[in-house]
Amino acid sequence: MKKIFLILILLPAIFSVYSQDADSIMIKKIYNDALSDKTGYENLRYLTKKIGGRVTGSPQAAAAVEWSKQVLQNMKPDTVWLQQMTVPTWIRGEKEICSVSSSIFGDCHLSICALGTSVGTGIDGLFGKVIEVKNFEELKNLGSKNVTGKIVFFNRAADPTFFYTFDAYGGVADQRVHGASEAAKYGAIGVIVRSLTLADDDFPHTGVMHYEKGIPQIPAIAVSTKGADFLSGWLKKDPQLNLFFRTTCRQDADGISFNVIAELKGSEFPDQIITLGGHIDSWDIGEGAHDDGAGIIQTMEVLRLYKKLGIKPKHTIRFVMFMDEEIAQSGARKYAEQVELKKEKLFFAVESDRGGTTPTAFSIKTDSISFNHVLKYRKYFEPYGIYHYLTDGSGVDIGPLKKFNIPLIVLVPDSQRYLDYHHAGNDTLENVNPRELQLGSASLASLIFLLDKYGFK
Amino acid sequence: MKKIFLILILLPAIFSVYSQDADSIMIKKIYNDALSDKTGYENLRYLTKKIGGRVTGSPQAAAAVEWSKQVLQNMKPDTVWLQQMTVPTWIRGEKEICSVSSSIFGDCHLSICALGTSVGTGIDGLFGKVIEVKNFEELKNLGSKNVTGKIVFFNRAADPTFFYTFDAYGGVADQRVHGASEAAKYGAIGVIVRSLTLADDDFPHTGVMHYEKGIPQIPAIAVSTKGADFLSGWLKKDPQLNLFFRTTCRQDADGISFNVIAELKGSEFPDQIITLGGHIDSWDIGEGAHDDGAGIIQTMEVLRLYKKLGIKPKHTIRFVMFMDEEIAQSGARKYAEQVELKKEKLFFAVESDRGGTTPTAFSIKTDSISFNHVLKYRKYFEPYGIYHYLTDGSGVDIGPLKKFNIPLIVLVPDSQRYLDYHHAGNDTLENVNPRELQLGSASLASLIFLLDKYGFK
Repeated sequence: MKKIFLILILLPAIFSVYSQDADSIMIKKIYNDALSDKTGYENLRYLTKKIGGRVTGSPQAAAAVEWSKQVLQNMKPDTVWLQQMTVPTWIRGEKEICSVSSSIFGDCHLSICALGTSVGTGIDGLFGKVIEVKNFEELKNLGSKNVTGKIVFFNRAADPTFFYTFDAYGGVADQRVHGASEAAKYGAIGVIVRSLTLADDDFPHTGVMHYEKGIPQIPAIAVSTKGADFLSGWLKKDPQLNLFFRTTCRQDADGISFNVIAELKGSEFPDQIITLGGHIDSWDIGEGAHDDGAGIIQTMEVLRLYKKLGIKPKHTIRFVMFMDEEIAQSGARKYAEQVELKKEKLFFAVESDRGGTTPTAFSIKTDSISFNHVLKYRKYFEPYGIYHYLTDGSGVDIGPLKKFNIPLIVLVPDSQRYLDYHHAGNDTLENVNPRELQLGSASLASLIFLLDKYGFK
Repeated sequence: MKKIFLILILLPAIFSVYSQDADSIMIKKIYNDALSDKTGYENLRYLTKKIGGRVTGSPQAAAAVEWSKQVLQNMKPDTVWLQQMTVPTWIRGEKEICSVSSSIFGDCHLSICALGTSVGTGIDGLFGKVIEVKNFEELKNLGSKNVTGKIVFFNRAADPTFFYTFDAYGGVADQRVHGASEAAKYGAIGVIVRSLTLADDDFPHTGVMHYEKGIPQIPAIAVSTKGADFLSGWLKKDPQLNLFFRTTCRQDADGISFNVIAELKGSEFPDQIITLGGHIDSWDIGEGAHDDGAGIIQTMEVLRLYKKLGIKPKHTIRFVMFMDEEIAQSGARKYAEQVELKKEKLFFAVESDRGGTTPTAFSIKTDSISFNHVLKYRKYFEPYGIYHYLTDGSGVDIGPLKKFNIPLIVLVPDSQRYLDYHHAGNDTLENVNPRELQLGSASLASLIFLLDKYGFK
């Protein structure tokens, strides 16, 4: 009797130990396969080298939709479908050019690119004197009398002392996003913006900008950080130098594009949906390897790992290649809109859009009970270098799902190199390390495996 | 009375809070300066681009001694001196060549390099049939009758499933280090060894090898991993193919070289010495940027940071650029020998020789009380991504100090990319990220700051 009693008391503990052990084994299998298998990196090679940069509305973006649909179908999930939406179409046009001419030191070239959604200068280009400012306050103090008819040069450098480079980015992004309209308010004819990066090199970094309603739309370009330092130095020598730049970018008519979605049906709760995704569009001057080829490949890899290792999810998992993250987030909005329309039940959502470097943390936006529950899984991730759990979560594509009051989770890789490549010509396959990329795939697969199995309580 | 009593009770707590706060401020200053200042990266640029690869005994190694002495002197420590030793001199000779010829599929080229300290083939090169093995056991089973007169191809791949890539390296290093003598025991005339890396590319990786006494010395080369896969495939198609390689490397007479040492005198315990170092020699086919340019720069940076921020150490700090880590460790032995000879008192020693990537951990070889004491400082390093503390510590250059029974500490950066560059042609400046490098500098400076101030108990 006593023996049976003891066994009954110990039973949950025994099961728990057994179960934990089985989880460790499965997680080890997931990481081992991710680190050994070359499919993910070869898929990234195709996406970056055969398709390349894929701005929303471009033929490359359309090719990426077709390709990712095919890749997902080949992995044999339960379903793959396209979710249609209207997207903006912005065309970069010819390779941009920019030069400085000075009566003191002659002519010099600068490495620039048009900012995304900017109007172009037209084929004649734009000439003007330059006025350098560090921020909008300085611009305001200069006022129309100093700014009218000039090109405003926003040259506030990102702060290198932030450990997390996205914080440095956040501190300077206003120049790129709102600089043109702010400068136009004081009569500027164009803006040239220091690239939002901590690297000291000659790559200009593009990225979206917005025109304020009712303000004249003036052309906006980014200049490399080296170029910005040169220009600033030249202006000190010759404040009367002339800047010339030519951009033939333009807005075209809206087009049609798609989110690409694959689904693994849940065995116990098929109507409760786990969403995992990254964005399939990218900027065009690089190959969109880190941003967000990495997130796309990792999303595909989670599906591949589930199929290969025979993991049957309890809840339905949706693998979403979101369209149009970079410009208008129409893919993210469409996905959320359809969830609402179809009254779908979401369980939680996960996004990977911070590059394909070594994972260091998860960010989990949820209530404290659920957050603390996730912390119980720390031990599974520490052998793979993930020690940190943040709460600032969310991402651009899963952000609109916040209203459904579900946990929003983001993979946080080491950010040190990320801004070196972000929106620039060097965001290429060569700068993504296969192991770092695949540690991300395995980390996502493992976390989803645990949360699908045990939930958050 | 009660009030005074309370104040007296709270006094230590107040001081402790104040002191911790001052430490936080200093550590923040250290990281901020390291991340903002370009000196370290520019020094690395000089070492890699102007001096380049610097094999022990080479003119480049001598130039690196002179240069580092100058850089350290310019930083104005209390003293800088050279510590002389005898070093081996191995000369690579002409660029190595290797080709395969087959009556079935014709001629093909392979990317190879001689292994460090290998004998050369001479200008006529070496021809032979090839026998592929995965390990010494297989070689033994094949025996002399299958091996005599042939070139042994060691093709065991590093295991990608290890998270920490040094573990993968450890699992295959025997092929490079002992392969030649093992093969020669069965009559082989040369060995070609799969490069010790997890990268799938065409860079051959050199590194030291050792001949066993009394065994014939046969030429040894490394082949890139892609090359190894090709060769293995070709051997399946044509086991009778002929391999040719030519290496003109040779051992020269021993030379004289130096450890370069700078010292900051301790204000309270000048006779107790903290040793911090990396190695100034490197392999020659790359620039020795990660291995160990990074460790050299970080060591110099700690001195620069101490001087710039006005930190006065209580104990004497020695900044040591060890010579000859890659071949015979004569610098490490000389340093330990001199400590013993001069009856110097060591406090603890720190080494950086695992590459210039983002720091993730410290490894601390000491007793458990001291180890647990170091753990109290975790909070200072977590904001900079260091969460992990290991006990497997030590490094090649501080290893000989173990007999003095002092704590041996090693900086452990993210290892994922390290083997991609290790001892290969792509160990270049371009593959070292300035922020990742400088996080290492700041982490070393901060840990030494805390341990110098508070010790281990």
